Amino acid sequence: MKTTDKDSCLILVSLLVKHGVRHVVISPGSRNAPLVVALAQCDAIEKTVVIDERSAAFIALGKASIVDGAVALVCTSGTAVLNYAPAIAEAYYRKLPIVVVSADRPMEWIDQDDSQTLRQYEALSHYVKRSYNIPSRCDNDTSRWYVNRVVNDAMLCALSGRRAPVHINLQLDEPLNVRKPAEATHWTERFIGHVAPGRILTDSELTHLVERLSSPNKVLVIGGFHKPDTLLNESLGRLAMMPNVTVLCESIANIHNRLFIDSIDSTLSILDDEGKRSLTPDVVITFGGALVSRFVKQYLRNYRVGEHWHVGMTDNTIDCFQSLTLRIDMEAGSFFAQIADAMRESVDSDYSARWHEVAREARQLHDKYVSSIPWSDMSAMSVIMSMLPHDCNLQLSNGTSIRYAQLFSSRDIRRSDCNRGVSGIDGCTSTAIGASTVYDGVTVLITGDMSAQYDIGALTVDCIPPRFKMIVMCNGGGGIFRFISSTSNQPELEEYFVVKRHFPLQQMAEAYGFRYFEADSEESLRHNFQNFMEVSDRPSIMAVHTPAEESAEVLRGYFKRHAR
Amino acid sequence: MKTTDKDSCLILVSLLVKHGVRHVVISPGSRNAPLVVALAQCDAIEKTVVIDERSAAFIALGKASIVDGAVALVCTSGTAVLNYAPAIAEAYYRKLPIVVVSADRPMEWIDQDDSQTLRQYEALSHYVKRSYNIPSRCDNDTSRWYVNRVVNDAMLCALSGRRAPVHINLQLDEPLNVRKPAEATHWTERFIGHVAPGRILTDSELTHLVERLSSPNKVLVIGGFHKPDTLLNESLGRLAMMPNVTVLCESIANIHNRLFIDSIDSTLSILDDEGKRSLTPDVVITFGGALVSRFVKQYLRNYRVGEHWHVGMTDNTIDCFQSLTLRIDMEAGSFFAQIADAMRESVDSDYSARWHEVAREARQLHDKYVSSIPWSDMSAMSVIMSMLPHDCNLQLSNGTSIRYAQLFSSRDIRRSDCNRGVSGIDGCTSTAIGASTVYDGVTVLITGDMSAQYDIGALTVDCIPPRFKMIVMCNGGGGIFRFISSTSNQPELEEYFVVKRHFPLQQMAEAYGFRYFEADSEESLRHNFQNFMEVSDRPSIMAVHTPAEESAEVLRGYFKRHAR
Repeated sequence: MKTTDKDSCLILVSLLVKHGVRHVVISPGSRNAPLVVALAQCDAIEKTVVIDERSAAFIALGKASIVDGAVALVCTSGTAVLNYAPAIAEAYYRKLPIVVVSADRPMEWIDQDDSQTLRQYEALSHYVKRSYNIPSRCDNDTSRWYVNRVVNDAMLCALSGRRAPVHINLQLDEPLNVRKPAEATHWTERFIGHVAPGRILTDSELTHLVERLSSPNKVLVIGGFHKPDTLLNESLGRLAMMPNVTVLCESIANIHNRLFIDSIDSTLSILDDEGKRSLTPDVVITFGGALVSRFVKQYLRNYRVGEHWHVGMTDNTIDCFQSLTLRIDMEAGSFFAQIADAMRESVDSDYSARWHEVAREARQLHDKYVSSIPWSDMSAMSVIMSMLPHDCNLQLSNGTSIRYAQLFSSRDIRRSDCNRGVSGIDGCTSTAIGASTVYDGVTVLITGDMSAQYDIGALTVDCIPPRFKMIVMCNGGGGIFRFISSTSNQPELEEYFVVKRHFPLQQMAEAYGFRYFEADSEESLRHNFQNFMEVSDRPSIMAVHTPAEESAEVLRGYFKRHAR
Repeated sequence: MKTTDKDSCLILVSLLVKHGVRHVVISPGSRNAPLVVALAQCDAIEKTVVIDERSAAFIALGKASIVDGAVALVCTSGTAVLNYAPAIAEAYYRKLPIVVVSADRPMEWIDQDDSQTLRQYEALSHYVKRSYNIPSRCDNDTSRWYVNRVVNDAMLCALSGRRAPVHINLQLDEPLNVRKPAEATHWTERFIGHVAPGRILTDSELTHLVERLSSPNKVLVIGGFHKPDTLLNESLGRLAMMPNVTVLCESIANIHNRLFIDSIDSTLSILDDEGKRSLTPDVVITFGGALVSRFVKQYLRNYRVGEHWHVGMTDNTIDCFQSLTLRIDMEAGSFFAQIADAMRESVDSDYSARWHEVAREARQLHDKYVSSIPWSDMSAMSVIMSMLPHDCNLQLSNGTSIRYAQLFSSRDIRRSDCNRGVSGIDGCTSTAIGASTVYDGVTVLITGDMSAQYDIGALTVDCIPPRFKMIVMCNGGGGIFRFISSTSNQPELEEYFVVKRHFPLQQMAEAYGFRYFEADSEESLRHNFQNFMEVSDRPSIMAVHTPAEESAEVLRGYFKRHAR
């Protein structure tokens, strides 16, 4: 038996079935022939062929009004999909889940006066819950993963919350009639499940989830940026006492417990392949926003986990390790509170103990390394982090400050934030000032000279409270470009990336009524930091001058410290 | 004390406060001066003035990252709002609720080379959850209602589910500096509350809601189109036994109980003003989709109710009576089951009894009228409705068929449907055919000759099962245009609206293998209907010929029957 050679069509059909689609209405054409071939070989879906797309869509609507699951519509390229609009508008207001799949030509040919090409992507956008576009090339792991994620997301979107149609525009390139042997694996696409409880899990959901976390499973919880949340902190603290559960958290996750491992990069950087393999979790549970740590993303993309659950209020499917199996749309605090309550029994596992052993070793290597380095960004950060008051709000700029801060334990700092939603450098100072106007305690911003220059206008704002403290790491600007591999060895490094501009920070500070401090050694930093942090009637700025190239060298050495 | 004369600005500020906004960052300009004036006189909101909009937005982001509620941003027209984009993108991914309010010039002036005019509406659409546009004229009840609804919806959108920024583009016309006396009523805008429980109400929510439904309240439940739902049917049946609760339902609500009043138009049409006033509910609860009944919409828009709750999975705010006070985002079945369980105590009220007295009288007048009318659409429908098998799926076309069907009790018909999502006539036949392919029993479509002609291609589809039965009311086409006031008296009625085309239904039926029947009197209808409904190996069509003008006259007379 031979089927189409278009993997995108095979993935799509496999996932339609897994998400419960049992009926498809097909309006055939040349461009959607591979889709029709894939569907023809799928016994789980009943096919109805209707020539007129307008009628086809209403027929699908009629089916969808009676059956419980989603109904699929498949058409070819050109105006075909536009004929779906009346029925899809009706379906939208009837809250019926119809999955529109329009075959399309490759996007390179749109608007080029080729026949039957028009802007199909988003053609139904006003009457579907979401529109998706799948490129014609589907010939490597990333493109196959993309199709998998798109179809999973489309189905979850159509079927959850307020039900509605969705539109997948599937580009297909010629030749359209090549066949390859049909294999059982074509029907085994990774299915992403969905729990959307609102605020609490039902008893049966909870029982089901807890079972999957029981011994002998290795469970790894990873927290990205999150607001401080007492319930979350307390619940994870209880979970972390289970011998088969380990909690890794970034500093801006704002959770604190001596059982949490809060220096992810520092810990992961000393693990060799065998260490990583043996610690690969059976289930990883993530919460919070985008992770800063590249180490953990690389780790879990390379060593694929069996199950990945993402917990949080979300409206799309976030599959950052390319292994997602379950979306749990609820607040992380409520989720972990229910899980911690339900996971009463202690299990026999050394998983947590092994992680803590690695973390302990990483910390020892960290302390030894930091105590041996010369004056640099890292030694300055080490001093600053140790001298920050516990009750401050630490605001970190992109990108060097947040990356350094991740290497140090944040256990003693009540609140840390950074613009990691989209990781821009453009408004770090303004954001910190905004936060300082409503945060009761002291707000400390650690920023680089490049970020500080970018948003220097923020200093002119007249609402800046005296409890705002700004530390500028002056290493000649753009220190991160000296470190990251995409720029560090380029001949354009000094002229184009590490931009050295005149930055009259002292004059700016004085002009806008800031107190001004400087440091250019560990000693002067320690000495001036206390004055800088003192309560005053004016906000304060401290410039910390570090050597640029030496700082990059020290950071590179840090990640090789275990090999010394 | 004088404030701006722009009502839109006053409504907006009033609702910001009611939805918990306590901080606004303002970048002043000329166009947003009325907004600034309105805000300046509002003590509940702390104002921060920042000139640079990019910095302003990041400052608002910082505030939003610390406080619990939404933070507002207010800018003037032109490029101002575009400077918000970096911080709003960051806020989107940080899930922070920021309400962007951009002042704009009236839309008539966009793209006309006037200074500082650009397409501001949807300028941030990729990084906000929803974009809104408010026109500059806000000088009557409808325009003030629109601003109220938009701001309520924007706030609910920003603060519920996955939190995110929203963008309100507020057009303001010159003169911008006119003032009027500030009045306390400017701060009393109708607030729309929100319960988004997912699947079940918490105990405290339930207690709170049940309290508001207790005696002496008059509670009216109204059901629009809905799938059959055993839990909903059973729960409403229990609720309808309460003496202070009345349930009105349309035929396509698919709920059935002798305690429900299922002929809304028929019942409401015999009420005089005093009757309507005395039956005006304290709380009206709606569920399901758009209502067919114009009577009930007019009634509840004219006699404003104290509270209107809408129950259903939805993602926007639907205020169809212009009185909404609470959005309850959950399935109606689960909601009414919880309410019925909790409302155990019987209360002293004659509200339900009074409604049923009116319904009884309406039914008597209905029966008397129908027994006296000549052969017409209505008498034909009366026969058909009485002869339909209980277990059929009744599919109704827009617009005459559904309107007639609403006048007859649907208690005996298991399942009724109509394309009332957007009420198109374009795909009624195709929809019914689609439904018939998956509905186990007989599907009966009642359609008009105009709808049938429109979608005649559907008869060519080869999946039509023999259990599909199609009744075409042939009254010369477009009967509804003879009845509705916007066309019935126009000189263009016959030539342009009531289109008489050659409609060779018999030949079509025979060509596509349908059995074909006709009726042109009550007697022939009764006689042929039984044959038409017989089990057969082919689908069936019946043409019912009625006189056009007489049918319109009979329908008009129906709504005056109580005055006879």
